[in-house]
Amino acid sequence: CAGMENPGYRSGSVDSLRHRPSDVVVEDDDDDDEMVDIAGATLDFSNTDDDPPLGSGEYFVERGSRAGSMSGAGPGRLVDPLEDPLPGKSKDRDRHREIANKSRQSTVALLHSVSDAFSGWLLMLLVGLMSGALAGGIDIAAHWLTDMKEGLCLVGFWFNHEHCCWTSNETTFQERDRCPQWQSWAEIMTGTSEGALAYFVNYLMFLVWALLFALLAVTLVRAFAPYACGSGIPEIKTILSGFIIRGYLGKWTLIIKTITLVLAVSSGLSLGKEGPLVHVACCCANILCHLFTKYRKNEAKRREVLSAAAAVGVSVAFGAPIGGVLFSLEEVSYYFPLKTLWRSFFAALVAAFTLRSINPFGNSRLVLFYVEFHAPWHLVELGPFILLGIFGGLWGALFIRANIAWCRIRKSTRLGHYPVTEVLVVTALTGMLAYPNSYTRMGGAELISELFNDCSLLDSSQLCGYKQSNSTSGAGVGNGLADRPAGVGLYAALWQLALALVFKMMITVITFGMKVPSGLFIPSMAVGAIAGRLLGVGMEQLAYYNHDSAIFRGWCSPGADCITPGLYAMVGAAACLGGVTRMTVSLVVIMFELTGGLEYIVPLMAATMTSKWVADAFGREGIYEAHIRLNGYPFLEPKEEFQHSSLTADVMRPRRSDPPLAVLTQEGMTVEEVEALVESTHYSGFPVVVSQDSHRLVGFVLRRDLLISIDNARKRQEGVVGASQVVFTEHSPAPADDAPPPLRLRGIVDLSPFTVTDHTPMDITVDIFRKLGLRQCLVTHNGKLLGIITKKDILKHMANDCQQRPRLHPLQL
Amino acid sequence: CAGMENPGYRSGSVDSLRHRPSDVVVEDDDDDDEMVDIAGATLDFSNTDDDPPLGSGEYFVERGSRAGSMSGAGPGRLVDPLEDPLPGKSKDRDRHREIANKSRQSTVALLHSVSDAFSGWLLMLLVGLMSGALAGGIDIAAHWLTDMKEGLCLVGFWFNHEHCCWTSNETTFQERDRCPQWQSWAEIMTGTSEGALAYFVNYLMFLVWALLFALLAVTLVRAFAPYACGSGIPEIKTILSGFIIRGYLGKWTLIIKTITLVLAVSSGLSLGKEGPLVHVACCCANILCHLFTKYRKNEAKRREVLSAAAAVGVSVAFGAPIGGVLFSLEEVSYYFPLKTLWRSFFAALVAAFTLRSINPFGNSRLVLFYVEFHAPWHLVELGPFILLGIFGGLWGALFIRANIAWCRIRKSTRLGHYPVTEVLVVTALTGMLAYPNSYTRMGGAELISELFNDCSLLDSSQLCGYKQSNSTSGAGVGNGLADRPAGVGLYAALWQLALALVFKMMITVITFGMKVPSGLFIPSMAVGAIAGRLLGVGMEQLAYYNHDSAIFRGWCSPGADCITPGLYAMVGAAACLGGVTRMTVSLVVIMFELTGGLEYIVPLMAATMTSKWVADAFGREGIYEAHIRLNGYPFLEPKEEFQHSSLTADVMRPRRSDPPLAVLTQEGMTVEEVEALVESTHYSGFPVVVSQDSHRLVGFVLRRDLLISIDNARKRQEGVVGASQVVFTEHSPAPADDAPPPLRLRGIVDLSPFTVTDHTPMDITVDIFRKLGLRQCLVTHNGKLLGIITKKDILKHMANDCQQRPRLHPLQL
Repeated sequence: CAGMENPGYRSGSVDSLRHRPSDVVVEDDDDDDEMVDIAGATLDFSNTDDDPPLGSGEYFVERGSRAGSMSGAGPGRLVDPLEDPLPGKSKDRDRHREIANKSRQSTVALLHSVSDAFSGWLLMLLVGLMSGALAGGIDIAAHWLTDMKEGLCLVGFWFNHEHCCWTSNETTFQERDRCPQWQSWAEIMTGTSEGALAYFVNYLMFLVWALLFALLAVTLVRAFAPYACGSGIPEIKTILSGFIIRGYLGKWTLIIKTITLVLAVSSGLSLGKEGPLVHVACCCANILCHLFTKYRKNEAKRREVLSAAAAVGVSVAFGAPIGGVLFSLEEVSYYFPLKTLWRSFFAALVAAFTLRSINPFGNSRLVLFYVEFHAPWHLVELGPFILLGIFGGLWGALFIRANIAWCRIRKSTRLGHYPVTEVLVVTALTGMLAYPNSYTRMGGAELISELFNDCSLLDSSQLCGYKQSNSTSGAGVGNGLADRPAGVGLYAALWQLALALVFKMMITVITFGMKVPSGLFIPSMAVGAIAGRLLGVGMEQLAYYNHDSAIFRGWCSPGADCITPGLYAMVGAAACLGGVTRMTVSLVVIMFELTGGLEYIVPLMAATMTSKWVADAFGREGIYEAHIRLNGYPFLEPKEEFQHSSLTADVMRPRRSDPPLAVLTQEGMTVEEVEALVESTHYSGFPVVVSQDSHRLVGFVLRRDLLISIDNARKRQEGVVGASQVVFTEHSPAPADDAPPPLRLRGIVDLSPFTVTDHTPMDITVDIFRKLGLRQCLVTHNGKLLGIITKKDILKHMANDCQQRPRLHPLQL
Repeated sequence: CAGMENPGYRSGSVDSLRHRPSDVVVEDDDDDDEMVDIAGATLDFSNTDDDPPLGSGEYFVERGSRAGSMSGAGPGRLVDPLEDPLPGKSKDRDRHREIANKSRQSTVALLHSVSDAFSGWLLMLLVGLMSGALAGGIDIAAHWLTDMKEGLCLVGFWFNHEHCCWTSNETTFQERDRCPQWQSWAEIMTGTSEGALAYFVNYLMFLVWALLFALLAVTLVRAFAPYACGSGIPEIKTILSGFIIRGYLGKWTLIIKTITLVLAVSSGLSLGKEGPLVHVACCCANILCHLFTKYRKNEAKRREVLSAAAAVGVSVAFGAPIGGVLFSLEEVSYYFPLKTLWRSFFAALVAAFTLRSINPFGNSRLVLFYVEFHAPWHLVELGPFILLGIFGGLWGALFIRANIAWCRIRKSTRLGHYPVTEVLVVTALTGMLAYPNSYTRMGGAELISELFNDCSLLDSSQLCGYKQSNSTSGAGVGNGLADRPAGVGLYAALWQLALALVFKMMITVITFGMKVPSGLFIPSMAVGAIAGRLLGVGMEQLAYYNHDSAIFRGWCSPGADCITPGLYAMVGAAACLGGVTRMTVSLVVIMFELTGGLEYIVPLMAATMTSKWVADAFGREGIYEAHIRLNGYPFLEPKEEFQHSSLTADVMRPRRSDPPLAVLTQEGMTVEEVEALVESTHYSGFPVVVSQDSHRLVGFVLRRDLLISIDNARKRQEGVVGASQVVFTEHSPAPADDAPPPLRLRGIVDLSPFTVTDHTPMDITVDIFRKLGLRQCLVTHNGKLLGIITKKDILKHMANDCQQRPRLHPLQL
């Protein structure tokens, strides 16, 4: 949703990234700028990514990204090139060495060394604690506000329904829910809880509150933190790939996203809090990074922390720390070294246990949906599970297409100009349609929880409305549950669920992408869970009425508890979520952590795998990649294989028709000539060659370094004038007697720029870019500098060729 | 253990890798050669790794490794360079394109395309099935042989103790164990099961069988598959990093390792089957790869399959598929793309469920040690858990040092010449010392299982020998267990356990590294589990007698089940295994999968983390890295950061005193000159430069390609004689009228060799090597070719500098 307000990102194609010198801001040296208060400001993307060297833009080489993502080395250069003028020396490494050397000298320094070493772990601890606490707060507040739509606690308005009735004397759960302390709005206003009037009043109040929450949410987002909308995962993926969006992880975004997330969830819109929690955790991590020198100054290390924070987000969202780590590894992160694996795991655990000690669900459980199934599954059931997988895949593919189409309409038509109206209309529509149906009226997480639940004997839920065929003469607790014909209540529930399914499928398409925080996990899972439960009950009844048929004989005899509809709901939820996000292992592990039983991994995996294959057959992009492309972020998909047969020479610049590359020679240019060259272009860096004739590559120098060095020299160094020679060589030739002393600038030249030859196949070049995290690379031919290739050139080339290239078979994954 | 027989590997230093042209075999084109029957043959390592260009060796550029590990592209060049003479085109990619294009044409081709796409999954399925089946077979056979040491089933000798007594009529478990069908050797031979004679006969038979098994194992290993010894994990790590050890994963190794593993485990030696199962799974994978063209011909793809197989191995070893995948990711694999993640997971699951359907443990459980704890843990208990972590770390560090020292002694003294004697002596020693103590007499896995077990009321184990203080007046099942004073039985058990701890600690050091298959997981875990159980019982008694003290008050009141000694055993096992292998996340996840409860993750993690930190403080290498270094395998540790401040120019060759690099010029050399150059050196590749003067780099050509091309040309092409010019340029100059026609060889030149500049800091160069999986890289200066740097140069440089460099603080991890 963020791209909307930025004219440069509106057209949604990579091409739009080109000629925007105005909103391309070379990354600031001071990282604190990212923390700048962007409330109400214009949304300029702080783009450190390179513009094509020959366009009107400028290219900028983030050496830090390259060296940093490779080994944590060198980002000192990025942060402040002047402090560390010699390329090839890395500040961070040096700092370690220094500390390590010092530590032998004194105990104080040893303690310093230990504290430095521990700072990473401390940071992880803090991220875990903060994210866990925030997630707990969000859960509690959202519960309270959601209940507020239905009624009020007379003991104290700050109690939610459940808390309000805790002190009640009623014994059964059902009666407890109707405790006298809690009154619906109809009771408060009209004094009665029955009848058409009461229903109408409740309906109206439900709508009023929903609209109020939605209005508040969208207004806050628009006024204070435009980045707070959406799920945030596409942007975080982009950020982790090396792009910088200034303020995206700042404190205003954090505050506003936390508040509006509560409001958006409470408003009853078809959205979840799980995706945005990832964004919240990343904001926490980014802000906490500023407490530690080691992370404040090092872009690459901070990205590792963000990877861990993504794991934390999923960990607190589902109470699944291992699943969270795998989610970060599989879905979010670009570069995930082992060190990050271990730290992510630690942070995810801390966060999960912080959340549990806050205990927002009131059940002392770690996980969002606690499920315990007793019956094993049978091999025959793989059939329906795979069917659910196909459904999930189809829905995922359809949803992505529909949602992207809708977002395009929003961008291209006047609809995009009225985000507040849009949110209000969708909220009103959702509220009006959702209220009459009890399954849509309840929150998404609550619905899923109920659908996952296996019916026990005491369960009063409509979904467990089985005919108690022989409840008195039945064997015991275990068998009394089994083998039940559906009763009237269950049939009614099924109809409501079917309607809820259609409704959820429709409304989620237009909800995701609005200017409120909105996650996709819960709505997707809800769709799948409904479909799964429907199928599960269907299978159950089929088994009951045909338990002598060939399929069911042997394992589904009367009296045996053979089909678990809750498991079907779970499998369906996994399938739909898999279809939308294309998560695989992490999804299965998250689900596994919910049940805690390895038994159910196989059904989950069969469904997830089928879902991914089916969805991939209709388009290889998951919803996050689709949104990344929609917003035109420069993101080089690490999963997809590059399918072109072109060579680097075809993609690099200058093209044949372009003017030649602007280069500096290592000697022979005067200060004036250099300044003229710099002035006449917008590139943020220049290759240095031996001479204009030979074009043999010496190194690469940053525009900024060049300008500052010349400036400093003119101010401080004696005799440096416009006619002074600029010398990049080690040993300058003896100057003529009458010439002014030369300006030696070898110190600012990066003597080890990355090069590939013009004959390198593009697939190899793309892989080098991905693996080394490059932003640009020089191209040589027979040792001579020929051109430059940037990440954006590659993205553009990929986008152009997208249509004509033969698609890899989806099964190939 | 494998390095022992190879003279080149005996000295155990990287230096020894240099001058061995005799056993450096340039990788064969035909992969089937790896399947060659190596039974009884000499152990030559098929080393595709480069030798230094200026030594007597040869350097060899495995383009396939580079391109392959990068994107699966290009290994066609490796497999058969002549078939695909144009670098930059990748066969695999082309094959896809071809298939994708064809698939539009006919349905048959579409089916082919689908089957091609599915072949990866099919392969995974087969690997899972085969490994699971083998693991099941190994389990069953080992059970049977282990029981054979104690007695015989009269109903049929092929039954193990448990199966033999299944049909027995006895009702309690204890009596069942003493069913009449099963007779100890004393009963069979002397007719009595009591008395000193019977004990002596049993003791003797135990020893005889143990020696017989050990003898058989070591003889088989020596005679048929020397690679079958050890755990195999160090070698697999090395293979996955790009090194090839011919026959290491062949069918003979598989067969012999499977058989001898059973024998070694049954012989009662202090070793486990878990590590070797990884090797077995990798052998299965390697053999099954030969069924699929896609994998037979592609080294890089096969390595991905091997990564997945490592996951399968751990999955079947512990019944922990998720843990297995993380083990492969964390500990074994060098390059682990997401695709592999998903496939590993699939294969691991298939294997785990295959194993379960074989049901070797007879309990229908997936996991090796099924544990179910009921009592939660208290925050105070973190203290003892961390203590266990410290113990584990100390033991891990100590074990590694002692074991490596012992292995060095074995290598350097005459001991190494008598492997059979060594195995027999150690077996005899183990048997003699182990028999009197019931905890050492039982197998390692059985012991751990018993130590992990929580005492239930009906438990007759000695470890549960509590005084039944109020068994009749006690509340119920739940509380009857709690708060127990130790009885005489328990005290006796503790003494035995303490002795067993000392014994296990000692004997494992000399056992690991002998010439039998031997894993470390179980012995390490056993040591930790004993220590943990001892501490746990100690804590329990402390709590019982001091339940009013400040520490225990509130959570450990009389009647509450507050301390679970089994949990302590589990934490201790994790700590010791962590100390030895330095696994972290995967270890915690494996343990988590055993219990299935997220509750116990925190104790496990606290202990594992402490253990790793403590162990790292004494030496950063885990046991596998230590053995890799001991054997001198060329392995570039991906975890450790490179700490030198040197530049590439300092490490590359030629050094200043060396003769200049042997290069070809792109034109001007005659066939004779080229042949002379090739003959005079042993390098497996030559850079091509523009001219001897300019030294601008054009490309790189393989020795093999060069020789074959010239040979072919001489045979087939008219007029190619010794005086013909060899031309590597695109457009050759018009030859003089009288000159013979030139030989054009541009087709065999790799026009996109990797280059770095001489000023590149070594830490960046090392990272490029790691990330791109390079074996060598050309070094340029100002566009001119300066030298070459190989992986081996880097390893040597790292080894030389190892002493003087400042060590990174262990907490830094």
